[in-house]
Amino acid sequence: MPEQNSPLDLAVGDPFGPHNLPYGVFSTHDHPEDRRVGVRIGGHVLDAGAAAHALGSPYAQLLAQPDLTALLSAGRTAWRDVRRALTAWVTVPAHRPDIEPLLHPIGSVTLHMPYAVADYVDFYASENHATNVGKIFRPDGAALTPNWKHLPIGYHGRSGTVVVSGTDVVRPSGQRKAPSAAAPVFGPSVKLDIEAEVGFVVGVPSEQGRPVPLGRFRDHVFGLSLLNDWSARDLQAWEYVPLGPFLGKSFATSVSPWVTPLEALEAARIAPPARDFPLLPYLDDTGEEEPGGLDLRIAVAINGQVVAEPPFATMYWTAAQMLAHMTVNGASLRTGDLYGSGTVSGAEPGQRGSLLELTWNGREPLELPEGKRTFLEDGDIVTMTAWAPGPDGTRVGLGEVTGRIVPTS
Amino acid sequence: MPEQNSPLDLAVGDPFGPHNLPYGVFSTHDHPEDRRVGVRIGGHVLDAGAAAHALGSPYAQLLAQPDLTALLSAGRTAWRDVRRALTAWVTVPAHRPDIEPLLHPIGSVTLHMPYAVADYVDFYASENHATNVGKIFRPDGAALTPNWKHLPIGYHGRSGTVVVSGTDVVRPSGQRKAPSAAAPVFGPSVKLDIEAEVGFVVGVPSEQGRPVPLGRFRDHVFGLSLLNDWSARDLQAWEYVPLGPFLGKSFATSVSPWVTPLEALEAARIAPPARDFPLLPYLDDTGEEEPGGLDLRIAVAINGQVVAEPPFATMYWTAAQMLAHMTVNGASLRTGDLYGSGTVSGAEPGQRGSLLELTWNGREPLELPEGKRTFLEDGDIVTMTAWAPGPDGTRVGLGEVTGRIVPTS
Repeated sequence: MPEQNSPLDLAVGDPFGPHNLPYGVFSTHDHPEDRRVGVRIGGHVLDAGAAAHALGSPYAQLLAQPDLTALLSAGRTAWRDVRRALTAWVTVPAHRPDIEPLLHPIGSVTLHMPYAVADYVDFYASENHATNVGKIFRPDGAALTPNWKHLPIGYHGRSGTVVVSGTDVVRPSGQRKAPSAAAPVFGPSVKLDIEAEVGFVVGVPSEQGRPVPLGRFRDHVFGLSLLNDWSARDLQAWEYVPLGPFLGKSFATSVSPWVTPLEALEAARIAPPARDFPLLPYLDDTGEEEPGGLDLRIAVAINGQVVAEPPFATMYWTAAQMLAHMTVNGASLRTGDLYGSGTVSGAEPGQRGSLLELTWNGREPLELPEGKRTFLEDGDIVTMTAWAPGPDGTRVGLGEVTGRIVPTS
Repeated sequence: MPEQNSPLDLAVGDPFGPHNLPYGVFSTHDHPEDRRVGVRIGGHVLDAGAAAHALGSPYAQLLAQPDLTALLSAGRTAWRDVRRALTAWVTVPAHRPDIEPLLHPIGSVTLHMPYAVADYVDFYASENHATNVGKIFRPDGAALTPNWKHLPIGYHGRSGTVVVSGTDVVRPSGQRKAPSAAAPVFGPSVKLDIEAEVGFVVGVPSEQGRPVPLGRFRDHVFGLSLLNDWSARDLQAWEYVPLGPFLGKSFATSVSPWVTPLEALEAARIAPPARDFPLLPYLDDTGEEEPGGLDLRIAVAINGQVVAEPPFATMYWTAAQMLAHMTVNGASLRTGDLYGSGTVSGAEPGQRGSLLELTWNGREPLELPEGKRTFLEDGDIVTMTAWAPGPDGTRVGLGEVTGRIVPTS
């Protein structure tokens, strides 16, 4: 009776059930150099390339790969077809004898960065977050800059320091200057922070000089992951005028090993918030067929204690608008481009996605079991999780992103 | 008498003589898909991999490659040894029968992007440029921000739109807003500009969490190229507060196909300008063995007419300081990282490396043979060249970077 105790017999409502099927890259302890595309089902990872071979699938060439690049670049029709095939492999009883031997308990494998990040862009698309930051840093001025509701503000980050969840983060050193000090001082950051974000992964490239309009979003973007945009607020405050964040962000950005395909999030699509200003045509999504917002519920925990539950549904700018803006000047896309939403913060204090906001720049410390926290201490472990409504009342789980702070070496 | 009319019989003082030997990647018209490492000698390109094979050199594995990645990552000892071998190949008469058949006239080959750009960072290291920009955009405030003389300000750019010299540049579209207007408008940039820069190419990677100190600059950086950081000033002015330049820069950045090794520029090393403030230890180069400045003389031409001659010797921050700063937070380096100096501008009006400065934001048009110019018109061709003092009174030529503006498609 092989069906009994099968990893494919998931609890009802498992957030990583067959309605989800996120992609990643894993290796086993026996063959640490052999990276393989994996698909998460419940608490297991399916060796997708081996499954394709075992079942004689035509998708073996996309799945029997050391990373997701081939799949990402294959395009929307292939994404749909591969997903349909995978769904059958993990649900049709006749496939169980072939599939079950190819399932690895998640705890038994190493998860890797699933694709090479090409360009990394970080947006600033939460009105609540931008307003809070404006109030904290520019208390005498308008909280939002005049451009904020006309375009999704963004900037490029360092793709070479994007790391997979679980990688330790070394506390960065750098310059900081107190407002009253005559000169900057150097040392480890004393305001090390998190930013709870969602990162969108580009699959299909575009041509330089050719913008990607709103309606082509689904042709280019494959899926999304949770992302923690670690930030050193003291370094950032001193360096960022006039050309933006640099060392305050570039030391590390952590992403989940699991890329959730957009197709798994159909039931999570919602209308974005009402816009306060009419948008220029290339950003105006009022005529789009699909609503551009996503109802993702994020939870941020420090050392296991949930400190915030940021709702992605509140984001002012949609992922499609970010993509349209990012390319409207003719900038091209490459497979593996990653763009972050910016910190997700809701309207309520408990929904803020950064310690800067949660502690109001350190003035209102959080009470954790191990003591008060303004910013991160060495040894702190930050873990972000999320879920979205799935079909028929299910939940779609997003893969967690976690990281531990280690002292400056 | 094969020595007669040999491409290796260069005119005395040829800026691409055997004291120079920049590296690039080329293909021939007969084999356009076959990319090969080339070394420029005079008006010819030596097929370096074929030469290594012909001469039984141990460096064939670094040179018989489709791009410079293997050479870049090989490290300083290999860089020196390969250069020494190449110098012999193009100067020792006994090698001529093997070498001459492997020389291609530059006009007969296609030059390609010589390496995959990993991360692209742009600095802002010219005091004259930053002062001019400050005066133009913030006429009522201090020209330099308070941080400017304490750290080399920089930000990340888009590596996916770095293109090789000769690639057409499509005029970008985007949002701009006149100060008096109530809302932004959309359209092709009306202030399309250049920035004459020098780009430094990283060869040897570093480890995340481990800064690269000043004294290790030569262990990581292989060489440099001219770089044109095309800029749409109207897009930039509206978007850049508070997170820095984005679409105003990300549509295209052009680089020379030739990477000049630092070893060719020993005679060009000079002391940087005196510093006005004491620097934090990680940036303080007063005790370094080698002076960190470089005496490169740049010329910028529009449609063949020289409009500026920016002196790189005036740069406040050195390339080693930029590298030390970029990594002091633990950000790692990858082979193919490229960082630009920022616009090079001298103290004199004719030494300014951008049209923004040369025309003082359009108020003082340039007089060109074809008419007045404030910013670039469709069809304009911008070409940057440079040279540096070489050994024994010679000149070291840098490969030119050129590009033509084509209308928004």
